[in-house]
Amino acid sequence: MVIAPNSFKGSISATAAAAAISKGLERVWPEAKLRPCPMADGGEGTLEVVLSRGGRRGTRRVAGASGKAIDAAFGLIEDDTTAVIEIAQVVGLTDANGTAVPVEQRSTRGLGELLKQLLDAGVRTFMVGLGGSSTNDGGAGLLVALGLKLLDAKGRDVEPTPAGCASLAHVDASTLDVRLASTHITIMSDVNNPLCGERGATAIFGPQKGVNPDRAADIDAAIARFAALAERAIGRNAKDRPGAGAAGGLGFALQLLGGEMRSGADVVAELLGLDALLDEADWLITGEGRSDCQTLLGKAPFVAARHAAAKGVPTTLLSGSIDREALPELAQHFTSCHALSFGPATIEECVANASGLLADSAEQLARLFQARAIE
Amino acid sequence: MVIAPNSFKGSISATAAAAAISKGLERVWPEAKLRPCPMADGGEGTLEVVLSRGGRRGTRRVAGASGKAIDAAFGLIEDDTTAVIEIAQVVGLTDANGTAVPVEQRSTRGLGELLKQLLDAGVRTFMVGLGGSSTNDGGAGLLVALGLKLLDAKGRDVEPTPAGCASLAHVDASTLDVRLASTHITIMSDVNNPLCGERGATAIFGPQKGVNPDRAADIDAAIARFAALAERAIGRNAKDRPGAGAAGGLGFALQLLGGEMRSGADVVAELLGLDALLDEADWLITGEGRSDCQTLLGKAPFVAARHAAAKGVPTTLLSGSIDREALPELAQHFTSCHALSFGPATIEECVANASGLLADSAEQLARLFQARAIE
Repeated sequence: MVIAPNSFKGSISATAAAAAISKGLERVWPEAKLRPCPMADGGEGTLEVVLSRGGRRGTRRVAGASGKAIDAAFGLIEDDTTAVIEIAQVVGLTDANGTAVPVEQRSTRGLGELLKQLLDAGVRTFMVGLGGSSTNDGGAGLLVALGLKLLDAKGRDVEPTPAGCASLAHVDASTLDVRLASTHITIMSDVNNPLCGERGATAIFGPQKGVNPDRAADIDAAIARFAALAERAIGRNAKDRPGAGAAGGLGFALQLLGGEMRSGADVVAELLGLDALLDEADWLITGEGRSDCQTLLGKAPFVAARHAAAKGVPTTLLSGSIDREALPELAQHFTSCHALSFGPATIEECVANASGLLADSAEQLARLFQARAIE
Repeated sequence: MVIAPNSFKGSISATAAAAAISKGLERVWPEAKLRPCPMADGGEGTLEVVLSRGGRRGTRRVAGASGKAIDAAFGLIEDDTTAVIEIAQVVGLTDANGTAVPVEQRSTRGLGELLKQLLDAGVRTFMVGLGGSSTNDGGAGLLVALGLKLLDAKGRDVEPTPAGCASLAHVDASTLDVRLASTHITIMSDVNNPLCGERGATAIFGPQKGVNPDRAADIDAAIARFAALAERAIGRNAKDRPGAGAAGGLGFALQLLGGEMRSGADVVAELLGLDALLDEADWLITGEGRSDCQTLLGKAPFVAARHAAAKGVPTTLLSGSIDREALPELAQHFTSCHALSFGPATIEECVANASGLLADSAEQLARLFQARAIE
């Protein structure tokens, strides 16, 4: 059995969820070889699950979204040649220091500083998980920290922020870190939005970061101005590519550097060797906090199920809650879908008792799963 | 597949529950021969499920618990030779007319009237489901309606009620209906309490019928007095038998008439031919409103599971809620135990959507059940 849940957001981590499910299955099959494979989709928890398979964790002191220094965690795998980065560790929406200044003054400069330090350490392969950012700077900060120059009409440096980009007149890429040419960047994200416009980063993700509706058009224009000039200076187009609007435009900046956009959960599945685990499995259990039609847009349980289906392994989705309306769609990808509760309960009760509920419900599902085989 | 749920108390009937579960299973196995077998345990719903297999429904005008006339429903099966009676149809706790007088003045006389009318019609076999009674008369009313005489010290008739029995001095059985000697009565009940004492009908079930704690000892003494005199007059002992305290002492009176006490659900299973249905089945689904350790005290899902286990058929319990604390005990009798909800929900939501939830969860469980077989 492969046990490959995502984190149960607001409740327990993917690792804890996999442990709880395993505990339930062990009660049914004490001798079975269980293969816990906690999943992530490039967002929160990605670092934790990737490092659970080896590698080491490090931190570097860099600028947070507001400019105030923070200690950002990252992972080194494959003999320190590959870095795994969660951008939320640098410019996370949950970092109170980072969001102490308005979104127009926030920058991803610290993320560029982190990449630079890792380039210094010899890293040339980066896996960057987008998700949970507080910034909306089009990735200007990242590029500036890596050597790009942003200048106003009088040739003065401009801040790599939405506010700064409003007075941007010229972008100089001649000083961009040359090591980037021999660097490979994998961008982990399931966002398909372009950088600007009505489906762009500012319009769609701006509000949750504090973009004032009255200012949205100006910010979008400033980012569009920066993007057009940066594309010309670097000689590559990226702003209309799917995912350019991810993480406030980091999807644009990283693609401008040649980064390859991939499904976060697919990359994680690859890093964790999910396919090899499935080769010897007869059942996959996955899950997440809440499952609905969004689950099918590249969330970890969906990706795990797709990998299992390719090998003919039945898949069970065991989540905190399942949107019944989505059952017909979910049924096309999961053998069966279940919630972890044993009766009427509040969300708070389910969150507080998630581990015990997961163990107990996994046990009951396992008993049913094996019933026909025993008979 | 045999689908044998009990009613979901306060929500849907056993018949509706079986239909909902069947609907879910049909989505998975459109061609399968599903065998719905809605269950009951001798209480509410017994008449409905028994008559779903044939026979006919009738009504007779008899006295309710307060003496006011009511139309009591009953069933006739086996070519009108056997009557199926739910005592709650005559002296039900939910009958507002019956409970309009205090419990000390309520009587089961109407039940005796019903038996008498059915004896007149040629019935000699009775299946009497106890449960849900508003009376606590030790079955005095039943016996009086069938010819027993209750007299005070001056030889005057005494009311067959707790109040009347307080002045009881003499019981005369010589006028008891002679046809009772050739009558067979099956009493359906899972109550084991004796008639009197600290585990007796008045002490344990009296409060929910409105027995005032200050009056409990007097009432218990009056019933004990009646029972001792009735036993002597009829020449059979019954008041200390298990179940004598069921239904306010109807368990006593019916055993005094030679009635045989049996598990209600077992009798129902027999009447419905559950064993024959299980002969060709590879799965049993049962369920009820709430499952806990009480379920194992002869409730319909437990009895259904026991019948299935005897034939090696795996059993799934699908209920409105499952007491997690009881899972280890339930697991000894059910292959797997599940609740019908798909996430956090109130009891009211589960009750209101029971049919849809049952269909959807049965479908998901069926998909998991067949997963291994398909593989």
